[in-house]
Amino acid sequence: MNQDYIKPDAWSIIEEEFDTGRVKSSESLFSIGNGAMGQRANFEEQYSGPSFQGSYIGGVFYPDKTKVGWWKNGYPEYFAKVLNAPNWIGINVFVNDEPLDLFTCEKVQSFRRELNMKEGYLARSFEATLPNGVEIEVKSVRFLSIVDDELGAIKFEVTPISSDATVRFDPYLDGSITNTDANWEERFWETLEVKAEEKRAYIVSKTLKTEFHVGTYMQSEILKSGKKEDLSPEVKTDEDRVSFSYSLDAKKGEAVAIVKYAGYVTDMNHKKSDLIQAASMVLEKAEKKGFDQLKTEQKDAWAAIWEMADITISGDVKAQQGIRFNIFQLNQTYLGKDERLNIGPKGFTGEKYGGSTYWDTEAYCIPFYMATKDQKVARKLLSYRYNHLEKAKENAGKLGFSNGAALYPMVTMNGEESHNEWEITFEEIHRNGAMVFAIYNYVRFTGDFSYIPEKGLEVMIAIARFWHQRANFSKAKNKYVILGVTGPNEYENNVNNNWYTNYTAKWCIEYCIQMIDKVKDAYEEDYLRIMGLTNLNESELSSWREVADGMYFPYSEEHGVFLQQDGFLDKEIIPVSDLDKKQRPINQKWSWDRILRSCYIKQADVLQGFYFFADHFSKDDLKKHFDFYEPLTVHESSLSPCVHSIQAALLGRMEQAYEFYLRTSRLDLDDYNKEVEEGCHITSMAGTWMSIVEGFGGMRVEDDQLSFKPQIPDQWKGYSFKVNFRDRILKVTVSSEKTEFTLEGNDPLEILVNGKPVEVKPNTPVTA
Amino acid sequence: MNQDYIKPDAWSIIEEEFDTGRVKSSESLFSIGNGAMGQRANFEEQYSGPSFQGSYIGGVFYPDKTKVGWWKNGYPEYFAKVLNAPNWIGINVFVNDEPLDLFTCEKVQSFRRELNMKEGYLARSFEATLPNGVEIEVKSVRFLSIVDDELGAIKFEVTPISSDATVRFDPYLDGSITNTDANWEERFWETLEVKAEEKRAYIVSKTLKTEFHVGTYMQSEILKSGKKEDLSPEVKTDEDRVSFSYSLDAKKGEAVAIVKYAGYVTDMNHKKSDLIQAASMVLEKAEKKGFDQLKTEQKDAWAAIWEMADITISGDVKAQQGIRFNIFQLNQTYLGKDERLNIGPKGFTGEKYGGSTYWDTEAYCIPFYMATKDQKVARKLLSYRYNHLEKAKENAGKLGFSNGAALYPMVTMNGEESHNEWEITFEEIHRNGAMVFAIYNYVRFTGDFSYIPEKGLEVMIAIARFWHQRANFSKAKNKYVILGVTGPNEYENNVNNNWYTNYTAKWCIEYCIQMIDKVKDAYEEDYLRIMGLTNLNESELSSWREVADGMYFPYSEEHGVFLQQDGFLDKEIIPVSDLDKKQRPINQKWSWDRILRSCYIKQADVLQGFYFFADHFSKDDLKKHFDFYEPLTVHESSLSPCVHSIQAALLGRMEQAYEFYLRTSRLDLDDYNKEVEEGCHITSMAGTWMSIVEGFGGMRVEDDQLSFKPQIPDQWKGYSFKVNFRDRILKVTVSSEKTEFTLEGNDPLEILVNGKPVEVKPNTPVTA
Repeated sequence: MNQDYIKPDAWSIIEEEFDTGRVKSSESLFSIGNGAMGQRANFEEQYSGPSFQGSYIGGVFYPDKTKVGWWKNGYPEYFAKVLNAPNWIGINVFVNDEPLDLFTCEKVQSFRRELNMKEGYLARSFEATLPNGVEIEVKSVRFLSIVDDELGAIKFEVTPISSDATVRFDPYLDGSITNTDANWEERFWETLEVKAEEKRAYIVSKTLKTEFHVGTYMQSEILKSGKKEDLSPEVKTDEDRVSFSYSLDAKKGEAVAIVKYAGYVTDMNHKKSDLIQAASMVLEKAEKKGFDQLKTEQKDAWAAIWEMADITISGDVKAQQGIRFNIFQLNQTYLGKDERLNIGPKGFTGEKYGGSTYWDTEAYCIPFYMATKDQKVARKLLSYRYNHLEKAKENAGKLGFSNGAALYPMVTMNGEESHNEWEITFEEIHRNGAMVFAIYNYVRFTGDFSYIPEKGLEVMIAIARFWHQRANFSKAKNKYVILGVTGPNEYENNVNNNWYTNYTAKWCIEYCIQMIDKVKDAYEEDYLRIMGLTNLNESELSSWREVADGMYFPYSEEHGVFLQQDGFLDKEIIPVSDLDKKQRPINQKWSWDRILRSCYIKQADVLQGFYFFADHFSKDDLKKHFDFYEPLTVHESSLSPCVHSIQAALLGRMEQAYEFYLRTSRLDLDDYNKEVEEGCHITSMAGTWMSIVEGFGGMRVEDDQLSFKPQIPDQWKGYSFKVNFRDRILKVTVSSEKTEFTLEGNDPLEILVNGKPVEVKPNTPVTA
Repeated sequence: MNQDYIKPDAWSIIEEEFDTGRVKSSESLFSIGNGAMGQRANFEEQYSGPSFQGSYIGGVFYPDKTKVGWWKNGYPEYFAKVLNAPNWIGINVFVNDEPLDLFTCEKVQSFRRELNMKEGYLARSFEATLPNGVEIEVKSVRFLSIVDDELGAIKFEVTPISSDATVRFDPYLDGSITNTDANWEERFWETLEVKAEEKRAYIVSKTLKTEFHVGTYMQSEILKSGKKEDLSPEVKTDEDRVSFSYSLDAKKGEAVAIVKYAGYVTDMNHKKSDLIQAASMVLEKAEKKGFDQLKTEQKDAWAAIWEMADITISGDVKAQQGIRFNIFQLNQTYLGKDERLNIGPKGFTGEKYGGSTYWDTEAYCIPFYMATKDQKVARKLLSYRYNHLEKAKENAGKLGFSNGAALYPMVTMNGEESHNEWEITFEEIHRNGAMVFAIYNYVRFTGDFSYIPEKGLEVMIAIARFWHQRANFSKAKNKYVILGVTGPNEYENNVNNNWYTNYTAKWCIEYCIQMIDKVKDAYEEDYLRIMGLTNLNESELSSWREVADGMYFPYSEEHGVFLQQDGFLDKEIIPVSDLDKKQRPINQKWSWDRILRSCYIKQADVLQGFYFFADHFSKDDLKKHFDFYEPLTVHESSLSPCVHSIQAALLGRMEQAYEFYLRTSRLDLDDYNKEVEEGCHITSMAGTWMSIVEGFGGMRVEDDQLSFKPQIPDQWKGYSFKVNFRDRILKVTVSSEKTEFTLEGNDPLEILVNGKPVEVKPNTPVTA
């Protein structure tokens, strides 16, 4: 554990000291978002110390030019970059003309920052002595409305405590912002219009190249001792910036405050020409509701989210805080309202991993959204990929595949590939398998087969075609092989016959063929449409079958395990526990070639296959593979510990499962990887949820039934979670003595508990 | 063949038309150099059309910052970049105040450019009609002295042919130059001083970061009708530039000319503080000699080079021109005077392949320099690596190797790694083998064993240590394996057990152990010194032996060949001849993954081993391997056809050998790869020489004796070459009827011809 300045609290993230060395970490941890936009917890007022400014709009990106040592044919010429958007949080504060800047204050005390997850706001308070000797007390509250998701609101209050003082608030909008990761001191935004009205101001900007048009806007009002002051600001506009300025005299002990409503409207949702009008309507509405009502609505909206998504843990406040932080961040990142958006690995908390969508969504996030929201949300995530199918076909085309084969991008914003390392971009093709697995998983959990004839089958056919072409027949092995891939374990590159990839490929083809048959039987119209679209015929299907049936899987007779890839046993096999701690994390200590030829596994690879296809293997199989691969796994990916936690739980190894759980749930809060400054690991947070629900709770879907095998770590008194199973809300409450199932609604539900059928009647807790 | 505008000529490269689309190609092809500096054939006068400016100084580089997608531990933070240096060729010309600019002239006729390889100069002549209607005739000659290698000289003559005219010559020095490949519009030079004296001018600049100090200088004189005019120029200096201006009236038909002496002096050879003085001494000397004498000296010096290095071919002028172009360029790039310099893949003809030294030097260039120059030159090339040994150890240290193991850089200028792609930088480790092979090859050819105790053995020990640590024991194979490498065939990355690498590794260890024994026996003092330095002991040696003895080599029983790497036979094996021509070159048509999983070979890999270690294998072995691998080779490296040419000749397949020969010898002149604009392929030019001498001539060293098996392509009437074998100059003249051997000097030499001993007496041709 690398930091522990975050105070344990069941519902809030709290820090109680101002430390300039932690500002960037806290900016990540205290980030707020509403699914449509989000921002790092930068201060409103001027701050001259080290800081990482970031305010992001879902779906708005810039195509950065690919720069590589030696160009490889097939690289995308541009790739999507997460863009820092115009600043609307800014409120410069002056006290007797001295700027408030926490980096230059003589003294800062009683500093407290709270991310209130229950109600969805960020609060800050402190007392500061300015360089001119004036002492003030400051309180601010900020949130991004999840009700009106184009709107943010800030209340910033200053009380002079040493003497009377003149307080000036200069709220502003600034369009002249850059990215931290910009190669050159390049700007990605062009300001088109800066406009100030009586009490409102707007900046209309467009992104270069992609030409997203964004309106950034604000309105502000002044309160004195809690009462609205009718004060007209001085207005200043320049090329990229507009600011208001309010100067007012405050008595010692008298609070003066500014309320700022602000946010973004974009041409993803409005006409380009209507952005100012759209913004003014948002402001109109905000003004009418007022800050307090907006905040109440925010609280209520979050209460509704928590009602369904909360996991309680008793007896372990840090574990409780950890899981709530994860659930909170996932909901801040994606709420399932907009089919064009997705869940970026850093959400709205940083710039890294440009582009928003990885296989993380399909492999890790869908179960969380499926179980804690309406099933339409998961369906939207699937549709996101359906909507990108043509681009995935183009992408495969660039790599030489034909006949409508699709390769989904490793990283994307709009369906185009956004990554430029050959071993990832071209070779980490197992991602295609996750697309199909997510469809399978969705249908298994929701029972909503209709997605397959409507959209899923087209995706599956294009992917089956990819696998069929990507495999080649090895005369030497008399089998089909898949050469030159990178598996989920990115500490191997360009290997042959990665078991996980081969297994997934075979499964994708077989599942696709099954689904074709099923659609043929039950959805004739869709069947005919799809056959017409794809020109699929029996001879093609039979050549698919040949590949699937003949797929090669590297296997060790000696160890009785499938090998991660060809040649794995040529490595020196030394368990991680025998590795000098000074050599860890190996990705910071070892050169890449050393990592590649070592036996160390970054994240679940063969075991990822055993997680996805758990029902294909016996517990004894799992045990053998877990015992072989787990000791070689260094978990240097945020996506790794959760899968191992689930499997350890399944094997009844609760101590180990709990250890992995801690690693995943407090990864950012405790900054295990010393990098939280760059942003939080959003997608792996869904893995934390899985660790509890699928790991400790043992939840599965078996033959259309929910099944549980609840266990509890010794460290906990109890835990509970809810799942929405086919519109039936089931609450599961586990303690060391018993498990209680409570069902909402009117109809009973038969579930399996430790393999035995249990009927749960509505509103009548059942204990097992 | 992609271009054929170069006129066939035995001794010159000639173009006879001015085509703005070919200016950049010609700038490469007509490049001049003198081993210490070199430049592209940019025009002296202003040229506003597309052009690639380049003037380079041996050993002067800039450390460019590494920019990669995801940082890999072990990457060098900076890498050496070839630097475009201050411009000293510039002479702006005005006729009646109209600038001469071939891009804007109304008419250009009788344009002719000649690179006279026999005498070592570049000449240009044309008639142009300027926009103001004045017609002029221009003749210019330029060369870089190989006698005074800090000096260049230009004579630029203008004759008004339509009317009398005022001609202005503005010779200048310009320090404000940039690189074409600069990422930013960054400058790499800082001008420290601009100084003009009565008739001389200087700019002292330093490179940023590396702080090379360079003095660029000039002196000019004016000739009218061939006679020196005593004319004082107007002098203009600014921050980065100094120019002289001479204005003179010329009658119609009267030639006025400027002679400019100029060049570079650097702090590699002079004190920083003495650069201007050093430059002024060079100019003093130049002035004394005068242009004509300098040109005569140049001619004589080149005659001496040709006397030894020339290869004649009769009956095929294009082949003759090709081989002379190759020999000429090699000598322009490296003359063996300076141990700190080496042979860059683009020589002084372009910026590409930043850094100067690749394994090309050891694998391809040493035989040429060894046979056509004093053996000290080859020894200097070996010493270059000896001098970088400590840096090679540091480099290996960065990758986790210890105990004084060395990994020579893939690309370097000063011993530090200059390349940043993990699959090359960290994995193309076979280069280490070439370092040892070059030592072995040098000793074999020259008989100069002394290099080994003096320098070579230390290099060999450090390399043996690298291989010993780099291999690991595979329990599965019960053999030592080398995992995760890139072989000479760069169309495979991160493979296991590349046969060439494993074979070379084993050989390096065994040869090192042999040499240790030999040094122990014969050079006790050196032996003790080296053992003291390296702390090598018997137990370490025995663990080396274990690795060498236990080395694994992938082999196919079915095909009776060693496999390029593990799993090679899992590929689809389709000969290049069956590949659609539209798919070629595959590096421009296929994505990298497709190339990697294909069976196609960029350049000799297994066959490179069969070339280096030809005496380890039978002709039948070679035949089997050649027949297996040659049909899979796409020759998309300039270094590929020569090895295949040599082996085809050895197998008696002269048609094929000749075909490969053409590809290598006129690669740049005919621009096979459509990229000559970027510069010439200098290092592969040595391969062309090998194709004739080792291929057609069949020259080898066998048991300390020179051996020949001469053959001749049907297309030729005859060819001849000379070799310096242990200070004995032997000329070999081959025709379809006979081969004649002529020896210079006083002592007879016994050679083998087609396996039979032949005694060659001095100055008495022997026919075989």
